[in-house]
Amino acid sequence: MSGNLPDDLFRSVLFTDLYELAMGQAYLAEQMDQQAVFELSFRRMPAGRNYLVAAGLDDVLDYLEHLRVTENDLAYLREKLHFTDSFLERLRHFRFTGDVLAIPEGTPVFPGEPLVQVVAPIFEAQLLETFVLNQVHLQTLAASKAARVITAAAGRQVIEFGARRAHGTDAALKVARCSYLVGAAGTSLVLAGKIYGIPLFGTMAHSYIQAHKDEAGAFAEFARMYPQTTLLVDTYDTLQGVQKVIDLGRTLGNAFRVHAVRLDSGDIGALAKQTRAMLDRAGLQHVQIFASSELDEYEIARLIQSAAPIDAFGVGTRLAVIQDAPHIDMAYKLVEYAGEPRMKLSADKIVYPGRKQVFRKSENGRIVGDTVGRYEEKLEGELLLQVVMRAGKRLPAGNVSLEDARRYAIDQNKRLPEWLLSLDQSETPYPVAISEGLSLELDSVRQLLRPG
Amino acid sequence: MSGNLPDDLFRSVLFTDLYELAMGQAYLAEQMDQQAVFELSFRRMPAGRNYLVAAGLDDVLDYLEHLRVTENDLAYLREKLHFTDSFLERLRHFRFTGDVLAIPEGTPVFPGEPLVQVVAPIFEAQLLETFVLNQVHLQTLAASKAARVITAAAGRQVIEFGARRAHGTDAALKVARCSYLVGAAGTSLVLAGKIYGIPLFGTMAHSYIQAHKDEAGAFAEFARMYPQTTLLVDTYDTLQGVQKVIDLGRTLGNAFRVHAVRLDSGDIGALAKQTRAMLDRAGLQHVQIFASSELDEYEIARLIQSAAPIDAFGVGTRLAVIQDAPHIDMAYKLVEYAGEPRMKLSADKIVYPGRKQVFRKSENGRIVGDTVGRYEEKLEGELLLQVVMRAGKRLPAGNVSLEDARRYAIDQNKRLPEWLLSLDQSETPYPVAISEGLSLELDSVRQLLRPG
Repeated sequence: MSGNLPDDLFRSVLFTDLYELAMGQAYLAEQMDQQAVFELSFRRMPAGRNYLVAAGLDDVLDYLEHLRVTENDLAYLREKLHFTDSFLERLRHFRFTGDVLAIPEGTPVFPGEPLVQVVAPIFEAQLLETFVLNQVHLQTLAASKAARVITAAAGRQVIEFGARRAHGTDAALKVARCSYLVGAAGTSLVLAGKIYGIPLFGTMAHSYIQAHKDEAGAFAEFARMYPQTTLLVDTYDTLQGVQKVIDLGRTLGNAFRVHAVRLDSGDIGALAKQTRAMLDRAGLQHVQIFASSELDEYEIARLIQSAAPIDAFGVGTRLAVIQDAPHIDMAYKLVEYAGEPRMKLSADKIVYPGRKQVFRKSENGRIVGDTVGRYEEKLEGELLLQVVMRAGKRLPAGNVSLEDARRYAIDQNKRLPEWLLSLDQSETPYPVAISEGLSLELDSVRQLLRPG
Repeated sequence: MSGNLPDDLFRSVLFTDLYELAMGQAYLAEQMDQQAVFELSFRRMPAGRNYLVAAGLDDVLDYLEHLRVTENDLAYLREKLHFTDSFLERLRHFRFTGDVLAIPEGTPVFPGEPLVQVVAPIFEAQLLETFVLNQVHLQTLAASKAARVITAAAGRQVIEFGARRAHGTDAALKVARCSYLVGAAGTSLVLAGKIYGIPLFGTMAHSYIQAHKDEAGAFAEFARMYPQTTLLVDTYDTLQGVQKVIDLGRTLGNAFRVHAVRLDSGDIGALAKQTRAMLDRAGLQHVQIFASSELDEYEIARLIQSAAPIDAFGVGTRLAVIQDAPHIDMAYKLVEYAGEPRMKLSADKIVYPGRKQVFRKSENGRIVGDTVGRYEEKLEGELLLQVVMRAGKRLPAGNVSLEDARRYAIDQNKRLPEWLLSLDQSETPYPVAISEGLSLELDSVRQLLRPG
């Protein structure tokens, strides 16, 4: 069997759930092609979180601009899934022609706020549900987790190291991207460096040390090749490894330029203190300490709390898989069709009807509360949903470089009130109100739909 | 910014951590190019698991066969990362020329057992670490979670529905693949259907119902287009939705061919019983009940325990993100270089030195215990590690169709002892012994390495 994946995987119309196509064919047969509004939002804040950071929009817009179906795809749909010729003809010429509004990447977001709003003929808006959710769900979770790690590191450098444990190749790239978006210094993943222009970091692996006859020789060779490298000292015994770095410094004298030692196992806090003392005694105050090994925001906060002299953190697995909140109940829901508000009433899953806007108020440079209102309402506060795509083409607001998005995200983080930055869930959530207009809309639509 | 991803993403040499390339350049400069053996294994069973199911090998072998570097990649490495010309020339002609041994996809595996063993010049074997771990980690976790879901469903159909919440596009595809591997009936993700030949399933979304003037009309339209469809009944009120399906049955008479109703919210167990009773009273005994809504192996077991009359399950988010075990401490470690066994001694992270084999014993058709021994040892039991690639070319053992792998995986599951199939962690783990030969090897290598 070939595991070959198609070249155009990332823009394939087939990255969709079967029912989207089945409904599309039904809409076509029923001549239902009026404008729909779908909104993507999440219902509840995951345990332990006080805010999430919106991300994933750039990939969504890229997908919408380039979304295509190949002849090969059409053949599959015809032969294996028996779609009708008229539907396949419609699909062959498929282009996304709608508008997209969105909250910019890097903005703090809260339950019930539409992160993305798609305004398009119903078939177009429906078809892209799977991809939009897949990307915004992952990237928002990753950016949110990374933001917490950055907060915990309190100004120390954070490098994303998780490619090997992220869930697949796409997640590895997107976790690197989202970590950088919210302030990580860079990533170890070379492909992410190339695609996104993210700074790359790398040290050495235990295998390099092991492949050499002895650890001191491995250090000497690596430092000769890469004078300003970071040396991994825990392959056999951490403190003896540190001693070998010090010995190398004595041997090389002024030529010794090693930047840091890396601790990757054991009691990192205690080892960092012992390592710092040894380096300082040897006159190597400029050699930094880089720590990795099952780190996350909690462990980093604990290390800093205990005054561990660590200069930079490599954060891998727990960030890459978003260990404590790997999913949220994010959904993409129809809120308007043919100019009329729509909603469903399923138990516990109510979504407010009609097209919305989010209004955010600030005081003294900090955000203090949001209101979710009807799109056409005029309420106080900054409008969070911006038009990023019109008639299938990106507008400047939807064409933001990663560097610009990163500056914006870091600035947005500074606008969060102090109590939201705690790693623990605050007792009172950030206030998100429903406008009177939207409440009235809910009542009136519910009245219409209430069965019996 | 463009989120464009390169066409050859899945076979890019750059899907690697920077240090792999840095070490590669150092090995080249040091003229270290002897044969290395790396082994991929996991150290501990995740909480709540009694076995894992090996998966991901097919993508690893595909990668190794097709791994290429483009001129564009080389330019990036030269201009941005300042690799040397001699190293880049070596990389330009990079082909994987080594051997791979592996435990076949679908085989139950336990801590300390090498799932993949790579025998190649050290640079080649080192470079692929990131991709191999990325794929085998995700796919083994996904196959293992899906196997538990299938066990819990006790013969009822399970359909994988998680693409929208899987971590990225690659994970969505791989979760669909691994679920099918261990016995799921199919997936909702069209691209997975096309790439892997997996049966596709789909019903309808709430938005389809909402876009219509009334639910009964939506049901009638959809059933006209797709007579044997599954109708989603919980958009407004589940039991009233069921009543509308019954009414449609009365209207259509013999032309009524609807296959199932789908419950997607509320108390699924209670609603399934009420729905079954209503359908049966209406003479619709043949209409099945399909359940979704935050299902996993625990919830499915609970539903079946309570005798909920559910015929098939759609399992999404919790499977797709492998909610209760999103990562394991899987590592790819050097165990031999230039014919000599290697190991590291880092605290809590000991890996036995030297090339290994796994010997598995069975009694009465059930597996009863494994021994991890030296590769050349002759011990009792079936040899789990098989040669799947030789000199960079797949052998028949490494070229297994997904259908064949699925039959094998389902058969392997039947060979698990009953106590391992419990959803709770058993008090005694499955026995994995270390051979006397391997123990002696550990002692002798440790003696050599023990510092001081």
